[in-house]
Amino acid sequence: MVVLIHHYLHLPFSSPSLSLSYHSSSKRPRVRISASSSSSPMDRQNRRRGGYVDFPHLSAQHRELMLDLVSTVETRLESDLLPSSLSPDVQYFENESGNSQAALHIRSGDKASPIDLVLGSWIHCELPSGALDITTISAYLKSSTDAPRFLIEFLQSSPTSLILILDLPPRKDLVLHQDYLDTFYGDTQLDKRRQELAKVPEVRPYFSSSLYIRCVCSPTAILVSINCEAGGEGRMEEIIRDHVGPVAKEVLGIWLDRCACGGRVVEVHERADLEMRDRLIKKKTIEIDLGSSLPRLFGPDVAGRVLEAIRDAFNT
Amino acid sequence: MVVLIHHYLHLPFSSPSLSLSYHSSSKRPRVRISASSSSSPMDRQNRRRGGYVDFPHLSAQHRELMLDLVSTVETRLESDLLPSSLSPDVQYFENESGNSQAALHIRSGDKASPIDLVLGSWIHCELPSGALDITTISAYLKSSTDAPRFLIEFLQSSPTSLILILDLPPRKDLVLHQDYLDTFYGDTQLDKRRQELAKVPEVRPYFSSSLYIRCVCSPTAILVSINCEAGGEGRMEEIIRDHVGPVAKEVLGIWLDRCACGGRVVEVHERADLEMRDRLIKKKTIEIDLGSSLPRLFGPDVAGRVLEAIRDAFNT
Repeated sequence: MVVLIHHYLHLPFSSPSLSLSYHSSSKRPRVRISASSSSSPMDRQNRRRGGYVDFPHLSAQHRELMLDLVSTVETRLESDLLPSSLSPDVQYFENESGNSQAALHIRSGDKASPIDLVLGSWIHCELPSGALDITTISAYLKSSTDAPRFLIEFLQSSPTSLILILDLPPRKDLVLHQDYLDTFYGDTQLDKRRQELAKVPEVRPYFSSSLYIRCVCSPTAILVSINCEAGGEGRMEEIIRDHVGPVAKEVLGIWLDRCACGGRVVEVHERADLEMRDRLIKKKTIEIDLGSSLPRLFGPDVAGRVLEAIRDAFNT
Repeated sequence: MVVLIHHYLHLPFSSPSLSLSYHSSSKRPRVRISASSSSSPMDRQNRRRGGYVDFPHLSAQHRELMLDLVSTVETRLESDLLPSSLSPDVQYFENESGNSQAALHIRSGDKASPIDLVLGSWIHCELPSGALDITTISAYLKSSTDAPRFLIEFLQSSPTSLILILDLPPRKDLVLHQDYLDTFYGDTQLDKRRQELAKVPEVRPYFSSSLYIRCVCSPTAILVSINCEAGGEGRMEEIIRDHVGPVAKEVLGIWLDRCACGGRVVEVHERADLEMRDRLIKKKTIEIDLGSSLPRLFGPDVAGRVLEAIRDAFNT
């Protein structure tokens, strides 16, 4: 939703095999996962109307990974995050015909926290050419720290075709700040994770069609497409479980340890530049990505409501 | 020499089939190319001692391309460039045993010109594991303009294995300057050239082992490895002639038209930041790349002399 939506491709989705619920109105949200091999009409109805972590259209391994990542973020940052204040019609929304559905979950950081906000979303669109699923977690930090952000985004245009963006996008011009590059990208050995994933035969480097999005990524960003038509859905599940999952969890762990909870503090007089850069990135993200895509997928009224909520949360 | 030397791999080189001479001491250097199928002892001696555009160790197509690029730059910028002021023992140098050889050619811009300097070089090293050839043209602009630089670098570790970096490295933080990104990278359709080359089956994206070098490249940078073991040397020649050559000439043309001669002027009070960034990039380039590699390849004395000449020219 944050980076890849401008691609919107096509996906015949696989049916869900987990039944989930998510108490987003509580002060302390918790993810509850219960395995279910069948799917009752009530389940389907719940899923269709469901909250963010329902992920109703993802395959089993993909959903399990997303739940793991969401749960890790929320457990680790629980004391930093305020409850979601999104209205129900922004937490879940669909277009008039119901063939585009999405869920959005935003939790802002507590006043004393270095976390600005954590955003999670999924979009499912049945387009004339097929269906498409986009699943995202992104996290922004306040200008009290200059540590990188976190971003993971999946775009699935068929059960055997996936684009993945996984990165700690930098918040400084890395050309000018070698120490920052060393601290967050060299010392953390992030590139090893990219290299590991690149060894999988079905994994290819991916180049975003947006040059701006290429610019905001770090030099160790994982931008890959995974195509396993030959191996089928089973192989994709295997790749997610054995390769994408471990790497994603490691990168998130690095972000939580070194960035979100790393305690790196920026002097008050140095925060204005950082704020300006952060605000610009948020603004451009909305402009390039959501600003044009959401109205096309959900109509102007729904898109207007959702974009307003995102701008509010982004403070742009 | 500027970007790739820290890789130094291994190359059994093909024998040259052109005899060239280069009048680098004249105010108006000219490239003279004369085809020659045989190679006399005198030719070999000339080549071994030769000037920058001898390219004595490159294959025919590779050399022809380099000569074309050098000639295009020097013809177009002739009135901007001062003659080389490098001493002969920096224009050509080798290590004690003579198994590492290199030529360096630097022409600074005239006082009134926006060109800071144009640097050309080749290095040929016979390493224990094989031989390696690195060929470079890079161009720097003064802070009177903020237009991108030019860089082309080939690293050939065997007749069937080549790494290519071809880019207009930006001189501003592109995240903050969307207009700059649009002007030099969007409107120029540079990414189409990258995409064209990516279609060649033997071409794969290349990731520099230096994160800093990844950072200084633009989002449309061509960073590729070309491996054609199956097709042999003939196929490599074909790829250079039919694919690499046309793209390199186009990119150089864009740089000459839009950057070197684009007439984009920066206000005097805005030049300090640009100068600082340019100086830092030059310094890091030397530090990361040449500073550690040249002493290993040419011994401390030769390397010291060459590095001093480069630092002088770079004004760092």
